[in-house]
Amino acid sequence: MGVANLRAVAVRIALAQINPIVGDLAGNAAMINAIVNDLAQRDAADLVVFPELALTGYPPEDLLLRPAFLDEVHAAINSLAHSLPLPSVIGGPLRASQWDLSFQPSSDSRDRSPVGADYYAPVLNAAVICGQGEVLGIATKRFLPNYDVFDETRYFYRGDGPATVVTIAGQRCSFVICEDVWIADGPARDAAEVSDVVVVINASPFARGRRAERHAVVSHHARSTQTPFLYLNQLGGQDELIFDGASFVADATGDIVHEMPSASAAVHVISVDGPAISAVESSSPVADELAEVYELLTLATHDYVTKNGFHSVVIALSGGIDSAIVATIAVDALGPDNVTTIAMPSRYSSEHSLSDAYELARRQNITCRTAGIEAGHQAIAATVGDALGHEIAGLTDENLQSRVRGVILMAWSNDTGSLVLTTGNKSELAVGYSTLYGDTAGAFAVIKDVPKTLVYDLCRWRNQRDGIEVIPVSILEKAPSAELRPDQRDDQSLPPYDVLDALIERYVDFDQPVATIVAAGFDAALVRRITRLIDLAEYKRRQSPLGPRISGKAFGKDRRLPLTNRFRG
Amino acid sequence: MGVANLRAVAVRIALAQINPIVGDLAGNAAMINAIVNDLAQRDAADLVVFPELALTGYPPEDLLLRPAFLDEVHAAINSLAHSLPLPSVIGGPLRASQWDLSFQPSSDSRDRSPVGADYYAPVLNAAVICGQGEVLGIATKRFLPNYDVFDETRYFYRGDGPATVVTIAGQRCSFVICEDVWIADGPARDAAEVSDVVVVINASPFARGRRAERHAVVSHHARSTQTPFLYLNQLGGQDELIFDGASFVADATGDIVHEMPSASAAVHVISVDGPAISAVESSSPVADELAEVYELLTLATHDYVTKNGFHSVVIALSGGIDSAIVATIAVDALGPDNVTTIAMPSRYSSEHSLSDAYELARRQNITCRTAGIEAGHQAIAATVGDALGHEIAGLTDENLQSRVRGVILMAWSNDTGSLVLTTGNKSELAVGYSTLYGDTAGAFAVIKDVPKTLVYDLCRWRNQRDGIEVIPVSILEKAPSAELRPDQRDDQSLPPYDVLDALIERYVDFDQPVATIVAAGFDAALVRRITRLIDLAEYKRRQSPLGPRISGKAFGKDRRLPLTNRFRG
Repeated sequence: MGVANLRAVAVRIALAQINPIVGDLAGNAAMINAIVNDLAQRDAADLVVFPELALTGYPPEDLLLRPAFLDEVHAAINSLAHSLPLPSVIGGPLRASQWDLSFQPSSDSRDRSPVGADYYAPVLNAAVICGQGEVLGIATKRFLPNYDVFDETRYFYRGDGPATVVTIAGQRCSFVICEDVWIADGPARDAAEVSDVVVVINASPFARGRRAERHAVVSHHARSTQTPFLYLNQLGGQDELIFDGASFVADATGDIVHEMPSASAAVHVISVDGPAISAVESSSPVADELAEVYELLTLATHDYVTKNGFHSVVIALSGGIDSAIVATIAVDALGPDNVTTIAMPSRYSSEHSLSDAYELARRQNITCRTAGIEAGHQAIAATVGDALGHEIAGLTDENLQSRVRGVILMAWSNDTGSLVLTTGNKSELAVGYSTLYGDTAGAFAVIKDVPKTLVYDLCRWRNQRDGIEVIPVSILEKAPSAELRPDQRDDQSLPPYDVLDALIERYVDFDQPVATIVAAGFDAALVRRITRLIDLAEYKRRQSPLGPRISGKAFGKDRRLPLTNRFRG
Repeated sequence: MGVANLRAVAVRIALAQINPIVGDLAGNAAMINAIVNDLAQRDAADLVVFPELALTGYPPEDLLLRPAFLDEVHAAINSLAHSLPLPSVIGGPLRASQWDLSFQPSSDSRDRSPVGADYYAPVLNAAVICGQGEVLGIATKRFLPNYDVFDETRYFYRGDGPATVVTIAGQRCSFVICEDVWIADGPARDAAEVSDVVVVINASPFARGRRAERHAVVSHHARSTQTPFLYLNQLGGQDELIFDGASFVADATGDIVHEMPSASAAVHVISVDGPAISAVESSSPVADELAEVYELLTLATHDYVTKNGFHSVVIALSGGIDSAIVATIAVDALGPDNVTTIAMPSRYSSEHSLSDAYELARRQNITCRTAGIEAGHQAIAATVGDALGHEIAGLTDENLQSRVRGVILMAWSNDTGSLVLTTGNKSELAVGYSTLYGDTAGAFAVIKDVPKTLVYDLCRWRNQRDGIEVIPVSILEKAPSAELRPDQRDDQSLPPYDVLDALIERYVDFDQPVATIVAAGFDAALVRRITRLIDLAEYKRRQSPLGPRISGKAFGKDRRLPLTNRFRG
């Protein structure tokens, strides 16, 4: 009966969907402290949960190999265990030896190699349940993702031992870390079997369609174990990755009964009384996919700029659709006062390009300066022509124009301290329809994982959002052109973008062989030409800036191809 | 007695230290065929051994995720098994299902994840012993390196089962792949216990000091098992990596009794009769370390250019030491006819810089064109100044000059089809003493892993090599300067290079905390300033070209730090 009484008490679990900064241990700890103190003062929760590696931000990458970093993590967690007024779940990388953690033998050669043995003290991806001066338990990650953008076996050993269960307010709470919930008949099931509620802490990067997959996997666990699951995800942009938040709760029947917002921070308190679940906040509506992608690109841009200590950006406005959406996202991310645009017309620029650029800037209340490239173009073309002994022409001259723009933008950036945002989309980046050190020059490539067809969709969605056409319709309606030679149009070099984007998705995102793509009905010569262009552009991508990943396979650390590579197919 | 007779016959094992091209399955197979046919026609060997993943080149990176690639590997190995006239060891990635290979459960989450299960058919890093229409055995790699520059658990499952032994000419030959020989009491010992000779096939990248480590590990195995070991390494440059060859033989007492050349291809035949070993060729003298580094940088440059389908390069000659060594390496790699240099003086360039550049070109019989940057610099400075409303100055103006040079070089490259070699050294790259899209613009950064102090040593060594001062002494004797403002000198911004290089080695190569470096006697303020510069320059390095790795930790895939990163220490 004592047990029954205890079990009848509900536990209030606060899910803190926070946006930490990688490496900012002091700042992240301060954020954690502030949230827990607020909840404690309001007596609003019994347990506060933070995402995977919340203390360090995710992914810390090779900081995890720095002894000084691990030392500071250790100190920060000990400090939080003493200062936090409520039991809290604090994710961080822990040395097994310092916390007496069980682990499995390394999957690779690290722990047996005469070279590596001293260097790699076993570190686990862990979460300490602590507060009020006590450590109540430590959960460790058992399965390590080492595919796509993940490199966790580079850094971590696999945890071992029984599920971690801590009883709070009469409820047995268990803790599972990210990848472990994706394993069928694995740690999540084991945890559910010995607890009343399973808390899953995550740093799960966004990709289109990922939320439905998360719901399906967690729902399955909840239903099959008849146990409620709380799924907490990190928020925020970190280099190529966007953590979308979108945390959620599945009840013991597998129904998704509560969703937290995508693309913004929030703390929601969930009351768990055995199978009974209720959220203190009302459930947030979840945006449709275009809205979600747009808001996440905005978040990613905001976070890249501000987390790196900047506050303003500069963007080359061509009068085309790509620079239009990038400028619009930047304004939404940073405010119009922090966005400067520069129109850089050449001898080949059309009247309407310039007027469209000015009109876009006018509608969004942002500065647009004009810096024609003719003088720079002429001067350098003459210098190069003299050295070569002949005039430059063709692609050399087209690239030169683009690079003069890059130089002007970078000078502006150096003088003003604004970061350059580049405007290339995924379709262009795929086939190398860009100039290295020209239009690819900059700090952050906002739409590098957005295919051209989706760029159009995002523009239209943004124009509809508030019923105000922030992007002039003339920009959406004209034929795309790089305007680097007379009467140039994209469709002179490339197939229609709907065909191109479908082809890129098959070859890049799905790794389909050329033969498979042809068998699906694409023109064989076109497939060979485009896939060859994609292969050849690898060297440009390798020197291009980071940008946020929204697909299942983005150019970047998701796709690691050799530059020196003769394979075709 | 029958067995004794069989054992008394020596086996002649040819070690083929070849230079494959990644992804060039047809070309690599043709090279393999040619070598085996030649040996067979001369009746010069009983078994021919090729390096780890010889068929694909190493590392194939994400080509390993492409089904079309694995299909072609499968077909090529079957074809070789039929065409090769002698038993041969052919390294390649094999799907476990297609070759009936035993493997261990995945170390990470791939084989259990609902997301990854279909995608990743288990693939092993293997070597097929085949020829004359037969497959005699298949060796599989048991331990997978996933640290430093290696990502093998991203691609491979671990092989399982007993050691692979094939009896040829009465001798029991066993086969071990690369990392497995580095494991104490592991696959190498197991193989030695059941064979007369252990053949280790490798793709072991060069780092300074690595050869002695290889010798020590293999010698230990040979001595402790009283079994001869043949260690065969791949040759050639592949993006950041240099495979130095330097294959060798340890006899059953652990003595290194034969060494193959560093930095060049070779096929040596080793006769093994139980513990008795003899080489058909005489042992090659091994170069000293400066010679070895110089020759490997030359190999890397040659291979990057030619494997990517180019034959000529263009280099900006400043009159300084960095561009001097790069031009000299390029001439040794590609011949003087394939090296063009361009002197690009500015208003701040000194007379002696230009005359030193011309003199270097004259001594090496290479073209040196002149393309002053004044016109381009003035034109763009005026354009930017007008747009800003004030004249540019300071660092903005310095970077602009460097970027105008980058634009000129790239235009030259576009027009002529020559690749740009960049000239930045590791010391500069570390502290960000470079201009993004300026002096970092180019295809291959020849000395990006060479600290400034080593640049001097290499110049002096090269001048002594043939008794001809190919690099004018005046270049070695003057104080380093970027010449981007009046009377600029490196030592106005940086400590002396011997101090800087020692500091960089501690912080970058050894991951030492700031406190440790200070405790070793470096000035605390200097350490804080330089380590901060190193952290801040990460964004420049991320967009800089590849270059060959010669240290234990090069900038590149060896060191994967987040750009958005607030950790200091």
